[in-house]
Amino acid sequence: MAHTVNRYDAGVRLPNTNRADRTRARILDAARTTFASRGYHGATIRAVAAVAHIDPAMVLHYFGSKSALFAAAVDVDLGIPDLTAISPSQHGEALVRHFLDRWEGEANGEVAMLLLRSVADDEQAAEQTRRTFTDQVVPTIECVLTHPSEAPVRAGIVMSYLLGLALCRYVLQLPEVPATPRHTLIEQFSPSVQRALHEPLGGGAGTDRE
Amino acid sequence: MAHTVNRYDAGVRLPNTNRADRTRARILDAARTTFASRGYHGATIRAVAAVAHIDPAMVLHYFGSKSALFAAAVDVDLGIPDLTAISPSQHGEALVRHFLDRWEGEANGEVAMLLLRSVADDEQAAEQTRRTFTDQVVPTIECVLTHPSEAPVRAGIVMSYLLGLALCRYVLQLPEVPATPRHTLIEQFSPSVQRALHEPLGGGAGTDRE
Repeated sequence: MAHTVNRYDAGVRLPNTNRADRTRARILDAARTTFASRGYHGATIRAVAAVAHIDPAMVLHYFGSKSALFAAAVDVDLGIPDLTAISPSQHGEALVRHFLDRWEGEANGEVAMLLLRSVADDEQAAEQTRRTFTDQVVPTIECVLTHPSEAPVRAGIVMSYLLGLALCRYVLQLPEVPATPRHTLIEQFSPSVQRALHEPLGGGAGTDRE
Repeated sequence: MAHTVNRYDAGVRLPNTNRADRTRARILDAARTTFASRGYHGATIRAVAAVAHIDPAMVLHYFGSKSALFAAAVDVDLGIPDLTAISPSQHGEALVRHFLDRWEGEANGEVAMLLLRSVADDEQAAEQTRRTFTDQVVPTIECVLTHPSEAPVRAGIVMSYLLGLALCRYVLQLPEVPATPRHTLIEQFSPSVQRALHEPLGGGAGTDRE
């Protein structure tokens, strides 16, 4: 199922998509909007159904429960670019641009917000986030490291930077963070992510080649 | 009231603290523990009272309501060091060390966690966080900038880094982030915070003097 969901999230609609797939996709879109605006606790099957213009019974028919619907709604393909195809000196900037594009674009940006709104109070959401991290972020980074075993630590620092930005810009909305220009964020965050990827972990300051 | 609360949070117990102050402090400690472990929604006045070994009616007597108790519990003095007394080249590291000390120390570390657990689902918690940011973080940073008007943007980037770390290390617990050694985090995050404070905003990469 995850695979089917991911195809929608990547925005690719296959030619043979049938009616059930379309209905499922419509429910998932509605679920993301609803969870993102109301949080996990505030969202109801009824509210999701209303946004999807569908009977609440159909939501349950397709997904079974609110928690299963939530899991499907946040089970997304992050679409992280293949770093092996990018010059190593550009890896940091490529990741920052990718996540900003994703968050500031339509539809999928909601997923980050709804996850951040939910991880807080809900262990299932936190678990889903850890799984996405382990399945998608760590392997992408692993491919381009001199010491692949450092991938989880390095990916963890990268995601601390990026999720912190998402938290302060979209959820907390700290004064000025939502209004900070994109180019300023790229300029500031890219070298930080670059260091997390390619500089010695805990090495001396003199080795920082940025 | 905020001032009284802050004195407790800074760990300074004044000699003339009376019984009411002690009771209030005990309730606040219990509230932080309870909110941090159960989240805002899951915490009840009854649970806080049980942790404080006090009658629930006394909790209401002192604080009036769950939301007022929450506001008092997160109204803390961050104790940010006076940056004007520190060499400018050390500002980044000083802030990273300060927040790590705070979070990994006893008692107050809970505040970051309970706020992150709550901002999500609760606009009051988000508003309290924005107020702490505006009242404490922005002014501290403003004092050491060449262009003080840039303080909110720079402070916003600094807090994106630091809250992202708190989120991934304590709340989300992304694999390996809780286990990453403190010196690695200091090594990685200090130059990022330093850049956010003192490098041109959106300037060219060549101006990065780290």
